[in-house]
Amino acid sequence: MRGRFISLEGGEGAGKSTQVRRLAEALGARGIETLVTREPGGSEGAEAIRGLLMQGSVTRWSPHSEALLFAAARADHVEKQIQPALGAGTWVICDRFIDSSRAYQGVAGGIDDAAVLALHGFGSRGLLPDRTFILEVSLDQGRARADDRDGAAADRFAARGDDFHAQVASAFRGYAEHEPDRIRLIDASGSPETVTEALLAGLVDLLP
Amino acid sequence: MRGRFISLEGGEGAGKSTQVRRLAEALGARGIETLVTREPGGSEGAEAIRGLLMQGSVTRWSPHSEALLFAAARADHVEKQIQPALGAGTWVICDRFIDSSRAYQGVAGGIDDAAVLALHGFGSRGLLPDRTFILEVSLDQGRARADDRDGAAADRFAARGDDFHAQVASAFRGYAEHEPDRIRLIDASGSPETVTEALLAGLVDLLP
Ligand SMILES: Nc1ncnc2c1ncn2[C@@H]1O[C@H](COP(=O)(O)OP(=O)(O)O)[C@@H](O)[C@H]1O
Ligand SMILES: Nc1ncnc2c1ncn2[C@@H]1O[C@H](COP(=O)(O)OP(=O)(O)O)[C@@H](O)[C@H]1O
Ligand SMILES: [Mg+2]
Ligand SMILES: [Mg+2]
Repeated sequence: MRGRFISLEGGEGAGKSTQVRRLAEALGARGIETLVTREPGGSEGAEAIRGLLMQGSVTRWSPHSEALLFAAARADHVEKQIQPALGAGTWVICDRFIDSSRAYQGVAGGIDDAAVLALHGFGSRGLLPDRTFILEVSLDQGRARADDRDGAAADRFAARGDDFHAQVASAFRGYAEHEPDRIRLIDASGSPETVTEALLAGLVDLLP
Repeated sequence: MRGRFISLEGGEGAGKSTQVRRLAEALGARGIETLVTREPGGSEGAEAIRGLLMQGSVTRWSPHSEALLFAAARADHVEKQIQPALGAGTWVICDRFIDSSRAYQGVAGGIDDAAVLALHGFGSRGLLPDRTFILEVSLDQGRARADDRDGAAADRFAARGDDFHAQVASAFRGYAEHEPDRIRLIDASGSPETVTEALLAGLVDLLP
């Protein structure tokens, strides 16, 4: 049987990287094999592209170049890591996926949602997760968590202002409204344990 | 007045890099300011992407990832170098451009010409050269010239076989047939001087 594909989305400091690990452990305890991965990156080629995307000044890339680079990285990641794992019956838990491209490139670059999805259709045959969780915290809480995090230098995206991050959060909520079956909003303001419980509750229909 | 945009295309060893330089000198002697550039690359960001594209094994990138990376590099090159130069009245002479993506990604990757052009529309607003010259030599002559060239290590594309290069040459001829106004075939088997004369003859309608 094919594995399930889960993505976690949300702003910086929402707890995505924490929760992909915790969710993998919780699923592992239920006998489900998982692959934890992240975007941009997740495969050798995509990690090389990630280096180009995350370094340099905020204006290093035009919105269009940036959208093409994200699509290229995702195409490599899907082909080399995600599809083989799913085909082998492994569940894939991914820290950011297509909805981050829609939100960040859409908001930061004013790129049409349809254009972002067209690039995804071209590069990755439009692969969508079986379930996507948007981890929601206030901007203040997200910033406080991200600032506390050890060794996290601000990257090109984290360096943006409050307005930008508020627009990204609002874009995520819009996607959840339009695709309620795939995309679920999760209150991520509580303890790590509480959030993991909420994620597992949001997977009951997919669990064996 | 806007500068003119000229691209040189053709297989490895056809003489493109030689002729972009010679053509710039010939135009300079006529009082025309030129920018000589190349693809993939030509701007800081695009040269970084070039590194990812030209290194590694032939199968490093899937055709779709590769097409997205070329489109990203071209978008950066067009935005940062080509459009500003043309806007300043400088002629741009480019060693490979969109027709190489059409030929190489189309032939090597089986990617639809329409899809390659759609990516170019997205990334670079579909910018086309005012004139494109396809430098034609036989496979043997091209290989002999490329082999003689100092310090030229075979890259991911040069490493392909004869069938591949014959299909690329045939694809270029097809584009010239369909767009006779923009694209001209040039016999590049003669001396560098003869070829430069042919290029200048193919520009008479664009010269001031
Ligand atoms: N539920 C939580 N409560 C308190 N701190 C948390 C919680 N989840 C994550 N953190 C901490 O907040 C910081 C950011 O979490 P992280 O998982 O890296 O967020 P993201 O990947 O979304 O940027 C880390 O130091 C992490 O240990
Ligand atoms: N018309 C020509 N006759 C003979 N040798 C040539 C001619 N044009 C180029 N060369 C030589 O052939 C080699 C390949 O030329 P180059 O311009 O690098 O081709 P390309 O850029 O198309 O791969 C170089 O060593 C160059 O000096
Ligand atoms: Mg993280
Ligand atoms: Mg050359």
